[in-house]
Formats: sequence, C-alpha cells, structure tokens
Amino acid sequence: MPANSFGTIFKITTWGESHGPAIGVVIDGCPAGLKISSTDIQKELNRRKPGQSKITTKRNEADKVEIMSGVFEGKATGTPISLFVRNVGQLSKDYLELKDKYRPSHADFTYDAKYGIHDYRGGGRASARETIGRVAAGAIARQILKKTEILAYVKQVYKVKSKISPEKVSLKQIESNIVRCPDKIAAKKMIKEIEKARKSGDSLGGVIECVIRNVPAGLGSPVFDKLDARLAQAILSIPATKGFEIGSGFACAEMKGSEHNDQMTISKGKMKTLTNNAGGVVGGISNGMDIIFRVAFKPTASINKKQSTITSLGKNTSIKLEGRHDPCVLPRAVPIVEAMTALVLADELLIQKTVK
Amino acid sequence: MPANSFGTIFKITTWGESHGPAIGVVIDGCPAGLKISSTDIQKELNRRKPGQSKITTKRNEADKVEIMSGVFEGKATGTPISLFVRNVGQLSKDYLELKDKYRPSHADFTYDAKYGIHDYRGGGRASARETIGRVAAGAIARQILKKTEILAYVKQVYKVKSKISPEKVSLKQIESNIVRCPDKIAAKKMIKEIEKARKSGDSLGGVIECVIRNVPAGLGSPVFDKLDARLAQAILSIPATKGFEIGSGFACAEMKGSEHNDQMTISKGKMKTLTNNAGGVVGGISNGMDIIFRVAFKPTASINKKQSTITSLGKNTSIKLEGRHDPCVLPRAVPIVEAMTALVLADELLIQKTVK
Amino acid sequence: MPANSFGTIFKITTWGESHGPAIGVVIDGCPAGLKISSTDIQKELNRRKPGQSKITTKRNEADKVEIMSGVFEGKATGTPISLFVRNVGQLSKDYLELKDKYRPSHADFTYDAKYGIHDYRGGGRASARETIGRVAAGAIARQILKKTEILAYVKQVYKVKSKISPEKVSLKQIESNIVRCPDKIAAKKMIKEIEKARKSGDSLGGVIECVIRNVPAGLGSPVFDKLDARLAQAILSIPATKGFEIGSGFACAEMKGSEHNDQMTISKGKMKTLTNNAGGVVGGISNGMDIIFRVAFKPTASINKKQSTITSLGKNTSIKLEGRHDPCVLPRAVPIVEAMTALVLADELLIQKTVK
Amino acid sequence: MPANSFGTIFKITTWGESHGPAIGVVIDGCPAGLKISSTDIQKELNRRKPGQSKITTKRNEADKVEIMSGVFEGKATGTPISLFVRNVGQLSKDYLELKDKYRPSHADFTYDAKYGIHDYRGGGRASARETIGRVAAGAIARQILKKTEILAYVKQVYKVKSKISPEKVSLKQIESNIVRCPDKIAAKKMIKEIEKARKSGDSLGGVIECVIRNVPAGLGSPVFDKLDARLAQAILSIPATKGFEIGSGFACAEMKGSEHNDQMTISKGKMKTLTNNAGGVVGGISNGMDIIFRVAFKPTASINKKQSTITSLGKNTSIKLEGRHDPCVLPRAVPIVEAMTALVLADELLIQKTVK
Repeated sequence: MPANSFGTIFKITTWGESHGPAIGVVIDGCPAGLKISSTDIQKELNRRKPGQSKITTKRNEADKVEIMSGVFEGKATGTPISLFVRNVGQLSKDYLELKDKYRPSHADFTYDAKYGIHDYRGGGRASARETIGRVAAGAIARQILKKTEILAYVKQVYKVKSKISPEKVSLKQIESNIVRCPDKIAAKKMIKEIEKARKSGDSLGGVIECVIRNVPAGLGSPVFDKLDARLAQAILSIPATKGFEIGSGFACAEMKGSEHNDQMTISKGKMKTLTNNAGGVVGGISNGMDIIFRVAFKPTASINKKQSTITSLGKNTSIKLEGRHDPCVLPRAVPIVEAMTALVLADELLIQKTVK
Repeated sequence: MPANSFGTIFKITTWGESHGPAIGVVIDGCPAGLKISSTDIQKELNRRKPGQSKITTKRNEADKVEIMSGVFEGKATGTPISLFVRNVGQLSKDYLELKDKYRPSHADFTYDAKYGIHDYRGGGRASARETIGRVAAGAIARQILKKTEILAYVKQVYKVKSKISPEKVSLKQIESNIVRCPDKIAAKKMIKEIEKARKSGDSLGGVIECVIRNVPAGLGSPVFDKLDARLAQAILSIPATKGFEIGSGFACAEMKGSEHNDQMTISKGKMKTLTNNAGGVVGGISNGMDIIFRVAFKPTASINKKQSTITSLGKNTSIKLEGRHDPCVLPRAVPIVEAMTALVLADELLIQKTVK
Repeated sequence: MPANSFGTIFKITTWGESHGPAIGVVIDGCPAGLKISSTDIQKELNRRKPGQSKITTKRNEADKVEIMSGVFEGKATGTPISLFVRNVGQLSKDYLELKDKYRPSHADFTYDAKYGIHDYRGGGRASARETIGRVAAGAIARQILKKTEILAYVKQVYKVKSKISPEKVSLKQIESNIVRCPDKIAAKKMIKEIEKARKSGDSLGGVIECVIRNVPAGLGSPVFDKLDARLAQAILSIPATKGFEIGSGFACAEMKGSEHNDQMTISKGKMKTLTNNAGGVVGGISNGMDIIFRVAFKPTASINKKQSTITSLGKNTSIKLEGRHDPCVLPRAVPIVEAMTALVLADELLIQKTVK
Repeated sequence: MPANSFGTIFKITTWGESHGPAIGVVIDGCPAGLKISSTDIQKELNRRKPGQSKITTKRNEADKVEIMSGVFEGKATGTPISLFVRNVGQLSKDYLELKDKYRPSHADFTYDAKYGIHDYRGGGRASARETIGRVAAGAIARQILKKTEILAYVKQVYKVKSKISPEKVSLKQIESNIVRCPDKIAAKKMIKEIEKARKSGDSLGGVIECVIRNVPAGLGSPVFDKLDARLAQAILSIPATKGFEIGSGFACAEMKGSEHNDQMTISKGKMKTLTNNAGGVVGGISNGMDIIFRVAFKPTASINKKQSTITSLGKNTSIKLEGRHDPCVLPRAVPIVEAMTALVLADELLIQKTVK
C-alpha cells in the first residue's frame, strides 16, 4: 500500500534509506512558472543537516541537493520535480550488531512485524534522514505561500521552559543560537542540559511551537480534512513526536465556554478575535488570525546505556548502542516542522482555488 | 475539492446538514460477506443521540438508521453501503437571528470566508450531527476488527480529574453512568459541574481517553501514514477538539531517554514492553501493546451569555444564543471517538493484507 | 477497495442496486455558489429513463430525483450534494430463476468470482440503473462547463450506418427522433431494425459518437491522466461498451504521418488545425479544436432465446430469459455518454485552476 | 495537480524529461519480500530502447537502470523503490529551432496552453522517454503476477495485416523478428514498408494486440474501475495511441445478441465460455478467459517533410524536422503495452486481497 506520499494538489513522494545511495523526493503538482532555486532549498537543508553545531550529532553529511527534473530555465514547468541528496560517509558496519537485535523504542521490531523484512542499517527507511525530502519540498512550498510566514522554535527542552511571544518572534531571534530557542536565557540553559545529557549517554525530550502569520481566512475544509486535523497528521508524521495541540490545546479542558470563546470585532476593516484560543482555526477552516500549535518530541531513543531487549528470534537479551546520535532532536526538527506546515498550507492554498 | 471522505480501502463519505432532510454516509470498500445488522448500528447511534440524559441537550431526535444499499440477506455484498438518518423536529426558525450574525467560536465566519455562502440553520454542515454518519460507519468497521477492543471514556471534565486504569476498564463501567467516566466518584462530581454550568448558561471542556486492546503488531505505515498520525487526523477531525497525544504524550517533553525508552522482553512467547510510553505505536506502526491516546475537547461554543461579535456585513454587534445546547460535549463524544478509531484500524487491517 | 468514485476535484460516488430501495450519488467538490436546479437534473434523467419510447424497455420507472443535501436557497454550498431516485415497481420475483443460474454475458458469474456473493435481483449493482447517479451528477457538471457543448448521438445501429457532420449537429436534431440519430433516414432504418430484433427476442449493438465544442485549450494532463485516457476510462465504465476511439481512431493505423499530422494555422487570432485527426487532444491535452470520440456498444445481453450456461454449483444447464429488456441500449445510453464526458471535463476545468 | 502517478495499491510515479539529467520512477506499494533483480528490469528496458534495430531510431541510448532505494539483499522491503536511467548523448542544440515553433501533432502547443511554459528540448516531458519508468516498474509488476502471462505483438503496420492466434502465440515468436509481429510473412512486409517510409521521410501507424493468459477470475471492479476501463486508461496514456477495444471491440456494433453472447459451460471443472467476444472481462471483472485487447497507434508525428505551423507568438510559418526519429513506433511500443498491462493487473491482484 502506498504510504509515502503527502498532499492532494501539491503532492510529494519521498524515497530512500539512510544507508542506500541517496534520499529523495518527487514533487507532483507544483504550479508552472514558480521560481525554483537550489540555493533556497539548500538553505533549508543546511538548517536540518547533522554536524551543524556542538549539540547535534557529530556525523558530518553534506546533504547537497541535486535537481533532476521539472525545472527549466529556473522555473517549474508543472511536471514532476525530482530532487535528491546522496548519502555519503554512512558506516554500515556500525550496525552489524543490530542485525539480530531490536533497539528499544526504535522501529526495528515494528518494521519486521509489518514487512517480515527490514534494512537494519541506520534505521533504514525509519531513519530521520527520510525527512530530507520533506525539507527540500517544503522550501518549494514556501515559494507558493509568499506572504504567509511560518516560524517554528524550541519552546521547551526537558524541564527548561521558555517565554516567547508567538506574535512577535522573528527568524533572526530563532537562528541566533544553536538550540533555536528565541528566549536567550532559556536557550543557554537548554544547551547546558543537552550537553549534560550527551556526556551521560542520555537524551532529552521537549516542545516545539510554531506560529503562522498572514494566513488567508478560508483555508482548510470542514469534516475530515480540517486544517488542524491535517496539520496534526503532518506534524505527527515527523519521527519522535508524541502530541499535537492547537491554540488553547489541552488547557481548554479546564476552561468554561465563557472563558474560551473568542469574541469577534472589526479592526482595520478586518475580522479580529479578542482572544485566540482557537489558534487560528475554527470548524477546521482558518479565520485569518495567527495559527499557533505545539508539538511534543520524545527524547532520542538511541542512548549509550545498557537496555533490555529481544532478538529477532524472540530471545531476551540486552543492548548498548554506540555511535554519534543527537542527544536532543529538537534543534534540527525546527526546519522539519516548518516544512510540513508549509506543505499543508501550500496544498490548501491551491485547493482553495477550486472551491468557489 | 472533495474533503468529505475518510479512509483508503475502507472508505466513507458523509453528507448532510443539520436542517436538511437527512444525514448520511456511503461506505465503499467494506469486505464482501461481512455480517451487517441495523441493530448493531442503531446501538452506537443511540449512544451518540441527543436527549439521552439530563446532562445532554434536551433536543429529542430519534436518529433511526435506514440501510439503502450494499447489504443482501444480512451480508455486505462488497458494493457501497448507503445509510442515512432523517432529520426530524429541526426548528429552523430558531436560527433566523443567525442569518446575519457570526456566532463566536462557531464556523459561521470561516464557512463564509471559504465558500462565500453558508447554511446558517443549526450550523449546517458544521453541526455535530454530521458525525452520525461516522458513528454508523464505525459500527460496521468494528465488525471487521472483531478481536480488537476499542474503549473510550471521559477522563476529565473541567477541573474534575479521574483515576482510571486503561488496561482494565470495561464497557460496563463506562456505560454505568451518564457522563461515561468509569471512575464513579469523579463521575458524580463531573455531573454536578455540568449541571451547574448549564444552569449558569455556560459550558465545560474536558479530556477523553481511548484504549485499544488486542491490536495486531504491524498496523500503520512509516512516513506520512503513521498509525498515530492517522489517528490524530481522525480524532482532530471531530468537532470541538484541540489536542491529541499518544502514550506519554506531552509529558515526554520532560523526560530523559533512559526513562522514556520502553525496554523489551518476551512474555508468553510474545514481545512485551516493560513500560508503554510509546502508547502502542513505534515508528508509526503498532507493536501489539495497548494503544492509548487522549484528546482535549473545548467547552461548547454555544452559551447563553451575551458576547461581542460581528455581522456578515462587517459591523460590530453582540449576540446571545438561546436554545437547547449540550453544556459539555464529552459524554456524547465517546462513541464518536471510538468510531473514528475503528475506521482507522479497520482500514489499516485491510491495508495490511496487501503488504507482504 | 473503494471503486465507486470518479473524479479528483469534482468527485462523485454512486451507490444502490436495481432492487434496493433507491439509487443515489454523492457529489463532493462542487464549487460553492453554483446554481443547482432539480428541473435541470430531472431533464437529463428523463432522457435516460426506461419506458420513454416504443424501442426501449417497457418497464415504467418515474426516476424522480430528490436532493438531500448540499444545496441552500438554490445554490451549491460547497458541501456534498446527495441525490437519489427511489426504485419503484421492481419485480424481484421475476429474478428467482436467476438465483442459481448465471446469465451468459452478464456479470453474475464474475461478481460471484470477485465477492463470493451477489444480489441476483435484476443484476443488482451491475444493473444499468446504477448510471442514474452518473446522469444526475453529469447534469450538475454541465453547469460548470457553461460554454462547452457536449453532444452525443447514435451513429450506427447494427448494420445501419448514418452520415452526420459532428461540427454542425444540434441537440434538436438528436432529440427529433426516438433513436437519437440526427440522420433522419438512417434513424428510420434503425428503429425498424430495433423493432425487428425485439420481435425475434434478440438485440442489437451499435456506435455512439460524441462531439465537444468550445473546449478551452489546456485541459488534461500529460502522462497517465491524459484527457483522452481519462475519457476512455469514463466511457468504458458505462455498461455494455467494448471500444473507444478518438479523432482518427483505429483508422490511423492505415495512415502515413504526412496524411495524419494536423498542420496548424492562425484563424481569427486563434490556433486552428487544418485537419482534426487528433480529435481535439494532443499529448493528452486539449488543443481547443472539437473533441470527437466514438464508442462501441455490444448488443444487450438479455435476450429471449435459449442459451447454454452453468449453475452456481458448476453444473451445465440452459437458460431462457423472459422480461422487458431494451433490445438496443444506444438511445438511452446517449445521455449517459454525455454525463460521463461532462464529469471528466468539469473536473479538468477545476484542476486547471491550480496549474499555473 | 499531480497527474504523474498510476495505480492504487501498486502505485508508480514517473518523473523526468528527455533532456534533463535522468528519467525515473518511484514505486510505492510493492509487497515486501518480492525478489527484485536489476537484470529482469534491464531486459525489458532493452526491448524498449532506441537503436535496437535498423527500423528504429538511430539514436543510441544505453538506458541502464540504477536502483536507488527499497531493495535490500535482493528483496523489496515494502518501502518505495526508486529507479532511474541517466540521459546520455542528448543533443539539445538539435532542438533550438523548436524554441519558437510548434511541431504539428506534437504536444508543444498544448503544453504551452496548459502551463504557459514548456521545455522544448526533445519534447521534454512529452517525450516517449517518459515511458522508461513505466517499463521498469512493469518488470517488477510482472514478478507479482507470476503465473499470468502478458504478451503483446504488432498485428498491423499501415496496410499490412497479419494472422495471429492469440491463444497460441509465444514470446519466442514475437521476438523472432525486429518488428515484433509473430506472423513471419506479414513481419517481412511490415519491415519493408517501414524502411520505405523512413527513406521518404515519412512514418506509419499500426495496431498492437495484447493477450493475457491465466488471469484469475474476479479481478477488476464494477462501476468506474472496471478492468477494461482501467486497461483503456492505462493503454491510451501511452503516447501516440488513438483507440482501444477489447474482445469483439468495434465489431460488436454489427452483431446481434444471439451472436455476441458468450454461452457458458464447465470444462475440466472450470467455467469456460464457448466464444470470447467479451475478451475476458464481463461487467468490468475478469472471468478467467484470455483477456484480449487491441490498440491503435498513429504514425509518428516527427516526419522529415515541410509542414505548415505557427510560432509561439501566433504567426503562421512552416517547419521541416530533421533528426533520427522512429518511422514507426510499434516495435518499441510492444514492451510499453505489456508494462502498462502488468501495472493494472498487479494492482488489481493486490486489491482483490482486501475484497472478501
């Protein structure tokens, strides 16, 4: 069953394993005439790539994008855009021990349950390298969205929480430090905690928040393809995510209707709500206010500590992973969250052209 | 753009507005030979229907299902199953005031932004009556799942939290009280709070938890159609939802890998994890452990209090809704959460037949 | 597996069996604001309905359309439009003999092979009554196409061939006789042949031609969703069809490139080809010239003659069908061909809004 | 709008232009565990490749396949299989004249009408090189079909018709000559005609027939996804096709029901029809008899003769193409017809696993 495509009009299909020759994506449905620049794409890939700072994995991968089709004289032709990044410096022998052992909280066991076979080298298809295609495609989706600004940032790492005003945060603030938390004081503490975790062979979870500004009202659909429901699928399809909430989120549970309802007014000729508990989406459709959502990431499953596990033959055993893993995935997950958001919104923007 | 279908192999399409002649669903892809009984379907619809207790809306709707096609001599023929429920006793005149005013935190404004037209009577397509089709189809999906048990229940209403063991909870416990919370003491408090809210013309939010037992390992897909991502879309497509989390959920943010990882062992010849922070899904694929997720519901947007709003012509005004609304949607949302879950799992079970 | 939907943006799902309570269709993706009139829909259904003339089946079915959702104050709301027609006067007992015998060249045997079960009453889902939903939806699709004119007509019945100029033929000419052949002399012969066939308990095949005028250039897609390929699927999904050809069709086999190529010129500021061997579609995309295709219909499988067949238990036997069948399906198939064409073109027109 | 994918469970997406760096395909939904050999794939590509004989284009392209993902230790892993073939020896300068002129009966004009932009070098995406991905994917689809044999062959070139018994024809006979016509006498005449056409700078059309043996009964679906309707779309999505017919095809128009009906009998415990006018498909579902269809190919549009045409600025002009084109596409189209057929059947075989 095909499960490697995302989107309805702006549709991407990703392919590739961490230890195969390359990781790629095919984008089908990109509007003809859109300017496509490999520089823009590379910029986003660089924000995602390993080895970018002392708190990410030490693996060094260039992740250089190659455009294989669909672009002519700098513009999309309306035909499929095929992009890929070669895998270099993958050390498959690091993974020989994994041939017969399932890593706890990794997808080794579940892939075998599903397919009866799995490429054990570096997680194979379950590797977060798969998201390269998403980030590359997301860079193109952003071109379609022009005026709509998508900003994600690290809001929490382990027990370190930050104070950030989603209405005002800027890309510059986010990129001003290696943890991508625009609250400088919190950022320093986060970096400290991540380094501490690495030293002890452990890892940390956290929360990313994302704000989308200048969204036109009217995007999304009632019923199954609600904008928030689609964003939830998009975001929870990112590896290591465990929760998604929009606007008031889980806090709404403890509220009364009279507190939670967003009353409406006219401001500068436009509808504005006095509060934004909705997080910019009502009845599954954007209302023109900022869309704000949060996503929980679990601590990296790869830790350098001995753990109980089983073999592929069903025997109890133990495992201790070595290797150069991210002690906290959040800093590198920021561009992935933005990319998935861009993919949903660009798709909805194109869909809306057919609605009335 | 079509947005009223859900599922890939077991696919449903819902139709209908609250004040039209009927609300219905077409199920395409139901396996031939499956036993279909209108009694089973009606049982689930009765759990959803209004007027079922003193804490739901007083509107009295019979919601009697009619089978229009796809069933022959009590069995599915493999062709589309068309079901509907007639709308009776809808009082359209109640809604005349809404013709020109947008209700806060309702979809009136966003429908107009999207479509340039909306049926203002009772929320039209945005009415929760739309979920009738989902519940009816979910009852059939459950037949496909046979051994897999899906139980949802109210875990929290406003500030009243309950203690429930997902591993042991039973349908009987859930149905033992009108709020559908298996913790009897909490249930009483919840009912009290809901009645208090109703009297003051207000409404309350809350949390529903859902446990799925006896899921085969191997359901779901890597990448975009991860089982948890699909569940998130399915659940957040239910009206009034604001957040979804699976397993450890947002709590994972404050954990270390060494705490969060679910170590594995063999128990009675089967893989078992020592903890279940994953919530039964790893790498987007079920691992055979219980799937456990939670969903946040906002307080009902319809409250009997004066609120600021705007007219469809863009003028500031105020509104005070009358009418018989649910002061808390959670008790009636329980079968809807179960239905959406059943639809995802039945679909994945059929998908899995094509995978190896 | 769902197989009862057609279209990508303007998408229809049909349901119903000949002897169930009703036959219906759900249209998802109709642009909001489109005028919807049950009179327009009924007009097309009347062209399809049985008992309309002496050369169709004598069964008398009113086929009155009921609109169940998606239309408010005479306009499409953008939500699903649900339509159905009740089945009345179906005589199920006529079909009791068929319970255990497969009718030659009917779908009884193949349904059993596929599903292990089939509703033997009147062909069940395989009945041509299923096309009611297509014709109803097609009437709405025509509203979207406004300026684009779709005209189908009977070109050949058995050995009677007609002379018709596709560029000039009018609806009035087509509807001027009961066989729907605009060549009056041929029409008379065709009617005679059909009456003769009926009297002898036999049936006749034929050819329908369809011309589409004022199609904008640029509809359709390269590769798999070529406009001609989609039309072919649409048309060959109509019961009893055996072949489809566009423009020069099979005659192209005996031609040289220098004869077949359509040279181009500018006429009144527009591209025009000197010939139209393409039939209006080049590389899968419309070029603005008339689209012209032909479709072959086999003689009705239901004949009143003794035939060899087998039982559902695998024994040889014979069968002689009684009943009131169309001796030639073509006159009633004309509006079905037009409807399927309208569905493809309306869909492509909406798709094109997202392309550049 | 995405239009470069084909299939529902076994789904392919092709990408690439004739003068880009490569032409490729992503296969999503291949069952895990299937043996995948690049030798098998290359064998089919070699039957398609240019320069293979004196009657094809003289362009010499190696068309060597590279497997980029989805295969581990010789087996499909269930994840996307990415394949591509590099474009080498493309001479873009040959096409500079085409920058501003539309070639008659080529897709230059229609691409511009659709996209407002087109890659004029060698037809870009409209080049028949696009079918490389289909043939590669088809070679994998054949692995799924194992016992089902798909054989296509040239039945007619220009006015030369052949006599072939579809029940008995063998691959060896087909591959015994360069025109791929198993009737040796006709083959010789065809080759002569093709050489004559080439010398005069002209081109020829023809007919390919395809027979599929050992198809299980029960494949395909009623209504829109009839097996014959899907085959028609698949086949007419091949460049240069103008018509498709199955079984009796257009000849059915001149038949009576009593001649056309396929009476049934039991032979060796299996249903068998006495005739096969159906061509193996009844009511859209295979009945287990041989599936037989024919497809008409127009003469190659690229001819070395002066023709009237227009410029992209809308002026009348003339054009005379030079270059090394196939004077008759049919010999190289044989493996493409087989590939598209294999893609449909493999998909239907997987779909059928979910039906009962």
